Amino acid sequence: MNDYLKMSRAELEAEKERLLQLYGDEKKKGLKLDMSRGKPCPEQLDLSMDLLKIQEYRTEAGADTRNYGFLEGIPEARRLFGELLGVDPQQVLVGGNSSLNLMFEVVAAGCRDGFGKTPWSAGEKPRFLCPAPGYDRHFRVTEHFGFELTTVPMREDGPDMDLVEELVKDPRVKGIWCVPTYSNPDGYCYSDETVRRLAALEPAADSFKILWDNAYLVHYLEDAPEDTLNIMDACKACGHEELPILFCSTSKITFPGAGVSALAAGPKTFAAICEDLFPMTIGFDKINQLRHVLYLKDKAHILAHMAKHKAIIKPKFDAMRRLLAEGLADCGDIAHWTNPKGGYFISLYTLPGCAKRIVSLCKEAGVVLTGAGAAYPYGVDPQDWHIRLAPTYPALEEVEQATRLLCIAVRLASVEKLLAD
Amino acid sequence: MNDYLKMSRAELEAEKERLLQLYGDEKKKGLKLDMSRGKPCPEQLDLSMDLLKIQEYRTEAGADTRNYGFLEGIPEARRLFGELLGVDPQQVLVGGNSSLNLMFEVVAAGCRDGFGKTPWSAGEKPRFLCPAPGYDRHFRVTEHFGFELTTVPMREDGPDMDLVEELVKDPRVKGIWCVPTYSNPDGYCYSDETVRRLAALEPAADSFKILWDNAYLVHYLEDAPEDTLNIMDACKACGHEELPILFCSTSKITFPGAGVSALAAGPKTFAAICEDLFPMTIGFDKINQLRHVLYLKDKAHILAHMAKHKAIIKPKFDAMRRLLAEGLADCGDIAHWTNPKGGYFISLYTLPGCAKRIVSLCKEAGVVLTGAGAAYPYGVDPQDWHIRLAPTYPALEEVEQATRLLCIAVRLASVEKLLAD
Repeated sequence: MNDYLKMSRAELEAEKERLLQLYGDEKKKGLKLDMSRGKPCPEQLDLSMDLLKIQEYRTEAGADTRNYGFLEGIPEARRLFGELLGVDPQQVLVGGNSSLNLMFEVVAAGCRDGFGKTPWSAGEKPRFLCPAPGYDRHFRVTEHFGFELTTVPMREDGPDMDLVEELVKDPRVKGIWCVPTYSNPDGYCYSDETVRRLAALEPAADSFKILWDNAYLVHYLEDAPEDTLNIMDACKACGHEELPILFCSTSKITFPGAGVSALAAGPKTFAAICEDLFPMTIGFDKINQLRHVLYLKDKAHILAHMAKHKAIIKPKFDAMRRLLAEGLADCGDIAHWTNPKGGYFISLYTLPGCAKRIVSLCKEAGVVLTGAGAAYPYGVDPQDWHIRLAPTYPALEEVEQATRLLCIAVRLASVEKLLAD
Repeated sequence: MNDYLKMSRAELEAEKERLLQLYGDEKKKGLKLDMSRGKPCPEQLDLSMDLLKIQEYRTEAGADTRNYGFLEGIPEARRLFGELLGVDPQQVLVGGNSSLNLMFEVVAAGCRDGFGKTPWSAGEKPRFLCPAPGYDRHFRVTEHFGFELTTVPMREDGPDMDLVEELVKDPRVKGIWCVPTYSNPDGYCYSDETVRRLAALEPAADSFKILWDNAYLVHYLEDAPEDTLNIMDACKACGHEELPILFCSTSKITFPGAGVSALAAGPKTFAAICEDLFPMTIGFDKINQLRHVLYLKDKAHILAHMAKHKAIIKPKFDAMRRLLAEGLADCGDIAHWTNPKGGYFISLYTLPGCAKRIVSLCKEAGVVLTGAGAAYPYGVDPQDWHIRLAPTYPALEEVEQATRLLCIAVRLASVEKLLAD
C-alpha cells in the first residue's frame, strides 16, 4: 500500500510533501560528516600503535635497514607478504606505503616495455577492462596512461566472464583490474569458477596482465575470512604463470598513511618489473618494512589483528544495513544494497537516475558521500543508480544519523523521479 | 727524476717490476672493501637513532598522519623543506624516502604532459643535458625515458655555460641535470655566475626545466656550508620562475633507507606536478615526515646535526687526500684529484686510458670502486680517466688501506699505459 511504484500521482505528491518535511528536519540537525572514502577510524589506527614503538633496524640476517639496498625489500618482509599472497617470496617485491603507487608503476612499465613483450602503448589506442562498479583510483591510473576504459559488469561472483573472454580476443585489450576479495565497492568475492576462467584466459595481447589487487584479503567481517582461490596457483595450473600481477598492502591493517605495500608476479614478469623499478628508486623504506614484520609476524597473527578491526567496524556495517532495511521498508522496490562479508564498503543501488540526486541531497544536509558515478570508468554511471557507502570512519552514532538521512534522501529522490517520469 | 712521463723504456720496465711486487703484496693482504657507492657509515646512522623513538602522529594542527591525505605532505614538513630549499612552503611537496623517485616521476610527467606545455616526448628524440662527470642515476633516469644524453663538461664553477647556452637553442633539449652544491662526484659548487646564467636561459623548448638536485646542500666538510646562490630567487629575478625544479632529501642527513624527500617548483609547474602525482599515490608516508620534522626541527638544527656527520667523515676525506698526495708524489703528473669542501665524493683523474685498468686492479686486490665511466652518460668516459672515490662508508683504517692500494694501482696502470703507447 506504500509501494511508491504503485502510487498515484496524488499519493506521490503527498508523500513528497511528507519527505520534504522530514528532510528539512534532518537539515536542521546540522550534520557535518565525510563518508566519501574508505578510511579506517581513529580507534582502528590505535590498534597498531605498538608498531611505532619498534626501534629495531637490523634484519634477521644482520643487514642494516637504515642504509641503501634491497630494492625488492628485506627478506623477512618478502616472506611475510609471500605467505599473505600465497606465492614464493622470491617472486615478491615489498614497496613503500602505497600499493596504488606500485600499480601505477606497473602500468607505466607495461606501457613502456610490456614486461619484455609487446609494450602496452604500442599500436592502436590500448584498452583496459574495468569491472564496474569498481575502484575509481584503479580506473584513473589506466585513464592517466591513455587507455580506453572498457566496462565489464560486476556480478556477485566476479566480473562477467563471458564478456571478458570475448573482449580479450581484441589485441588492444591489455589487462583487467580485479579486486577479488570483498570487492570495492560491492564487497563481492570472486567465485572459484571466475578465478579459474580468468587464469585460463588466452588473450590476443601477449603482454596482457590480470592486475589482482587483493586490497582486502584479510579484511573480514564474519567469523572467518573468505578464501578466494589463489590466482597464481590457478594460473600455474594452466601454464599461465606470467598472467597475473598480485598486489596488497597493510594500509587498512596498520596505517593508511604509513603502511607497507607488496606485489608478486611470475618469474619473467617479476624480473621485468624489478628491472623497470631500478631507475625509479634506490629502494623503499626498509625500516618501516622491518617494523611491520616484527609487529605483524605472520598471517595467523595478522588474522588475529584483523579480528580487532572487525570488532570496531562490524557494528557500523550492521547498523547501516539495519537502518537501510528499516528506513526503506514498505516503499516498494526502490533500492537494494549489498551485504558484504568483509572489506570497506556497501553498494547501494537505487532507481535509475536517482544516485546523483541522492548524493546531492545528503551533501546539502551535511553528509558527504562518495560522488555518484565514482565507481564507474570515467566517473560516469550510465544508470545513475549506484552509491558507494563507506561506514568505517564515522563513529557508530554518526553512521546511524547518516543512514537515516540517506534513507529519506533515497525516498525523496525516488518520489521526485517517479513524478518526473 | 721519478717523473714517469720522462722515464726511458728501461726505467719504466724497472718501475713496473717494482710496482708489480708492491701490488702483489697488497693482494696478499686479502682486503675486502666496497667503496662503490656514497653510503653513510654505521656511525653516521647511529647519530639519528633518536628519530626512531618518536611516536607522535598528530601534526601541529591536530591532523592524524596515520590516515590518508596530504598528498603534498604535512604542513610542517613543507615548511621545513621550504626553509632548507629557500622557497615558499606552498611550492614544496614532501615525498617518500627517495628523491630519485621524485625526479623519476617528474621526468615521467615531463614526458607525458610537459608540465602543461609541450610534452618532452613529443616530436623528435628529446635530449637532456648531463654535466659530466655527474650522478649516474640521474643519467639513467633520462636514458630510461628515451632521452639522448648530451654531455656538458663539468668545471670547478659548474657546467660549461657557453655550451649550455648554445645547446638550449635546440628545441629537442628539454632540460639539464644539476647537482649545484658539492657536486657528485667532483664536490664542486656552482658559482653565482653559473647560477645566474642558468636562471637567465631562454631555451627553445617551452617546457625546458633545470632539475636542481641539491642532494648535498648541508653536507659540508669545512667550517661552514657553502652558500650556493638560490636558483629560485635567481630565476624569479629573470621572470623565469617556472624554469627550475628543486630536489633534496634527508637520505644522508638521517637514514638513506628511511628518510624523507622533497621537491619545489614555480606555481604553475608545481600545480602540474601535483596533478600528475595524484593518480600515482594517495599520499606519502606522513608519520615519517612528522618524525623528521620533530627530530630535525629547522635548518639551524640540521646544520648542527651535519657537524656531527662531518666529525665522522672528514677524517676519512682528509686521510684519503693525504695518502693520495703521499702515494702519488714524485712520479710526475700522472693524476690529480678534487678537494671537495663537502658532499660524498672525491674525483680522481688519471692519465687518459687508465681508469678502467685501475678499477680492475683494485677489484682484483679486494677493493671495489665505482665502475670506471659510471659518472658519464651511458657509462662511457670518453677519456677513460675518471674514478669516483667514496670514502664515507669504510672505517678510517680501511680508507687508508684502500687508498694505499689505489695509489699503487694508479702508478702501475700509468706505467703500463706509458709502455704501451
